[in-house]
Amino acid sequence: MESIERLAEMFIRFPGIGPRQARRFVYFVMRQDAGWIDAFIRELTQLRAATTQCTACRRRFMGATKAERTCPTCADTSRSNETLMIVEKEVDFETVEKSRAYSGRYFILGGTISPLEEDRAEPMVHALCARIEAMTQAGLSEVVLALSATSEGDDTAEYLHQRISPLAQKHPFALTMLGRGLSTGSEIEYADTKTLKDALSRRTKLD
Amino acid sequence: MESIERLAEMFIRFPGIGPRQARRFVYFVMRQDAGWIDAFIRELTQLRAATTQCTACRRRFMGATKAERTCPTCADTSRSNETLMIVEKEVDFETVEKSRAYSGRYFILGGTISPLEEDRAEPMVHALCARIEAMTQAGLSEVVLALSATSEGDDTAEYLHQRISPLAQKHPFALTMLGRGLSTGSEIEYADTKTLKDALSRRTKLD
Amino acid sequence: MESIERLAEMFIRFPGIGPRQARRFVYFVMRQDAGWIDAFIRELTQLRAATTQCTACRRRFMGATKAERTCPTCADTSRSNETLMIVEKEVDFETVEKSRAYSGRYFILGGTISPLEEDRAEPMVHALCARIEAMTQAGLSEVVLALSATSEGDDTAEYLHQRISPLAQKHPFALTMLGRGLSTGSEIEYADTKTLKDALSRRTKLD
Amino acid sequence: MESIERLAEMFIRFPGIGPRQARRFVYFVMRQDAGWIDAFIRELTQLRAATTQCTACRRRFMGATKAERTCPTCADTSRSNETLMIVEKEVDFETVEKSRAYSGRYFILGGTISPLEEDRAEPMVHALCARIEAMTQAGLSEVVLALSATSEGDDTAEYLHQRISPLAQKHPFALTMLGRGLSTGSEIEYADTKTLKDALSRRTKLD
Repeated sequence: MESIERLAEMFIRFPGIGPRQARRFVYFVMRQDAGWIDAFIRELTQLRAATTQCTACRRRFMGATKAERTCPTCADTSRSNETLMIVEKEVDFETVEKSRAYSGRYFILGGTISPLEEDRAEPMVHALCARIEAMTQAGLSEVVLALSATSEGDDTAEYLHQRISPLAQKHPFALTMLGRGLSTGSEIEYADTKTLKDALSRRTKLD
Repeated sequence: MESIERLAEMFIRFPGIGPRQARRFVYFVMRQDAGWIDAFIRELTQLRAATTQCTACRRRFMGATKAERTCPTCADTSRSNETLMIVEKEVDFETVEKSRAYSGRYFILGGTISPLEEDRAEPMVHALCARIEAMTQAGLSEVVLALSATSEGDDTAEYLHQRISPLAQKHPFALTMLGRGLSTGSEIEYADTKTLKDALSRRTKLD
Repeated sequence: MESIERLAEMFIRFPGIGPRQARRFVYFVMRQDAGWIDAFIRELTQLRAATTQCTACRRRFMGATKAERTCPTCADTSRSNETLMIVEKEVDFETVEKSRAYSGRYFILGGTISPLEEDRAEPMVHALCARIEAMTQAGLSEVVLALSATSEGDDTAEYLHQRISPLAQKHPFALTMLGRGLSTGSEIEYADTKTLKDALSRRTKLD
Repeated sequence: MESIERLAEMFIRFPGIGPRQARRFVYFVMRQDAGWIDAFIRELTQLRAATTQCTACRRRFMGATKAERTCPTCADTSRSNETLMIVEKEVDFETVEKSRAYSGRYFILGGTISPLEEDRAEPMVHALCARIEAMTQAGLSEVVLALSATSEGDDTAEYLHQRISPLAQKHPFALTMLGRGLSTGSEIEYADTKTLKDALSRRTKLD
C-alpha cells in the first residue's frame, strides 16, 4: 500500500489536485499497461534531460544545445531591451506573449515570495538583480512588475519593490506595476472597494 | 391556471430569476396566508407611493416631501460639484457610495443603452444633457462614465461618449471613464488579452 | 429607508433568495413605472382571491367556484382511490404528475415537520388523518410517503410514520415510502455509504 | 516544443484533466528540480513493477509475491463465495469496501463497455465468464451488477446482462443490479422522471 500512498502524495503537489483526485491518478496509472507507463516515464526523462533554464530570464525551455543556454525569446534581437517584465511563472509568460501586447524582455521568478520565505527566495532575487544590472548597460529604462492582483502577488510586489528600488535610483530606470481597475467582465454592482478605488484613481480621458 | 402563468411571467422579469424559480415564487405566494399577501401588497403600495425620482440625479429614493424633490445625496451641499459620475442603476450608486472613494455628484441612467434601442433612451439622454448643462454653471470640470466592463456597458459608454463630447468641447470639461486593468483577484495566467493590454498600457509608477 | 428594508425582508422569505438579491428586487420594483407595480399588485390580489385550498388534498389551486372546493385532481373520478401519496409541497405534486408514474390521490403537507415544531404541525397532521380515515371507506390500500431524501424529509417521514401507523394497523392499509438507491447520474465511485447500502439491500433481479 | 506537447497529451488522459491543466502539469514538472523528477520516475517504476493484477478479480493491487497472484480480498477465506459483485474500476471497489455493506467477492471490469467497443471488451468478458463458472462450483448464488446509473453504466449493464444470462440459467444463480430510487440528497421537486418511476416502483414498506 505504501507505494500507492507515496505516489498519491506526489500527485497532490500537482497544481489544482486534491487528495481524492491524486488517488484516482494512481489508480489510473495502475490500470495502464506497462507500455504506456514506459512511454510516460520516457517522456518525463526526456523532458528532464531537454529542459534548460534560460540563463537570462530563468525560464524553463526545451531544445537548447550545449552551446546556447538562452531561450529563443531572450535570443531574439528584434525585441526591445528597454523594458524588463517580471512574471511569476512560465504560463504567465505564455499568456502575456499570446496577448501580443508586449515586446520587451522577461524575468521568470518561479514562484511568489511570501513574507515568511524571503530567505529562501534570496538566490532568485540575486539573479534578478544581476539581470537588471546587466540590462541597464543595454539601455533598460523600465522594470514592470506583472504580478497577479492577489495577496500573494501583492506580497511579492512589495518585496521586489523594496529590493529593486535602490537599483532604480542608482541607474536610473522606472519601476512600474501593471495597471489596476475594472477587468473585462467587472460589474460596478459587484466591484470590491479596492477595485473601485483603483478604477477611480486611474480613470482615463476620452477624447 | 392563467393567473399563475401571468404572475410567473412578471416574476421572470425580476433580476436573476428564470422560469422555474418564477413558478416557485408563485407557489410560495399561494402558500402564504391572506395576511401575509396583504402585508406584501401594502409594502409594495407604500413603496410605489413613497418612491420619488430625484429631479437632479434621477435616482429613485424614499421619503421625499412634496416640497423637496431632490434626494439627500444631491441636496448635500458638502459634496463636490466638480465631478458628475454616470452610473447604470441604483445598486451601482450604492456600491460606489459604500467604497467612500467618490464625493462628487451622480446621474443614474436607469439601464444600459443597446445600439438598437437608442431611440427609447432619448428622454434619459436628454435629461442627462440638461443635468450636465446645469452643472457647468456650478463649476463642473469632469464627467465620469462609471459603467461595467461588459459589452452592454461598453455599448452604453460609446453612445454616451458620442452624445456628451459636443458638450465637453463647448464648456469645456473632461470626459473620463473608470480605469481598466487587473481587478482584485485577477491572475496573470487567466487574464484575457483585453485586460492585459489595458493593464500594460496603464501601468503605474512605483516610487 | 425603512420601507426598502421591510420589503427586502419579505423578499428574503422567497425560496432561494438571499439578502443581496432581495435588495436588488426592491430596487427593481422601485425602477418600474407605476403601471407595472399596479399590474403586479393586481395579479397578486387576484391570485390571493382566486386561490382555493382543496378540502381533500390541501393543495392550493386556482379557479374554484363557490360550490366546488376540491381541486381538479381530487375531483377526477378516473383516478385510483387505492393509493394516497403524501408530498411536501405543490411543486412536488407537479413533478410527480409530470412523470406520469402515479395515478392515485395526493395530500400536500405544505412543509416539512421538524422535531422541534411538531406542535405547530398538529392541524395539518389532523387534516391528514381525517383524509386517510375518509379514504379507507373508499378502498384505500396504501399510503406512500413521497418525501425528499434529505434530513428534513427523513424527520418528516419518521414523524408521519409514527402518527399514521396506528391507522394503518386499524383499517388496515400498507404504509410505504419511495424506494431508495442509485438515482439517475449516481456514480459508484462518489456514492455515499447510505445510498450504497440502500442500493445493495434493494437490488433488483434481472430476468 | 514537441516534448511538451507529447507529455501534455499524456496528462490529458488522466481522469478529469483538460488541455489547459495538462499544460500546467508539464510546466509544473519542468519547474521541479532533477531530484524530484527522479523520485517521481522511481515511484512510477516501482508502482509498475509492484502492481499485480489479481488473477481472480482482475483488480490491480500491490505487494504480491511471485507465489501468490491473488489479492488480499480474494484470498480472504472469511468472505462469502455466494455473491459476486461486478464493478467498473478499482476506486468503485474501494468505495463499496468502505461502506462495509458487502462481504462477498468482486470482479473489476477495468472500464465501461460501449456498444461500439464490445469486441475490444471480449477478453475481459471472457475472463468474467470464466470467473463466474469457477465460482458456481464454490456455491455462487448471485451475481450483482454494481454499475453507475449513467448511460455508460447502463450500456455496460445491458451488455453484461446479455452475456451472463445464459450462465445464470444453466447453473443457476440470480443476476441482479443495484437498486434504483432516491439517493441521499434527492429532492422530489428536482427528481427526474426516471428516478421518480424507479422510486415509485420500488417503494418500501414501513412496518
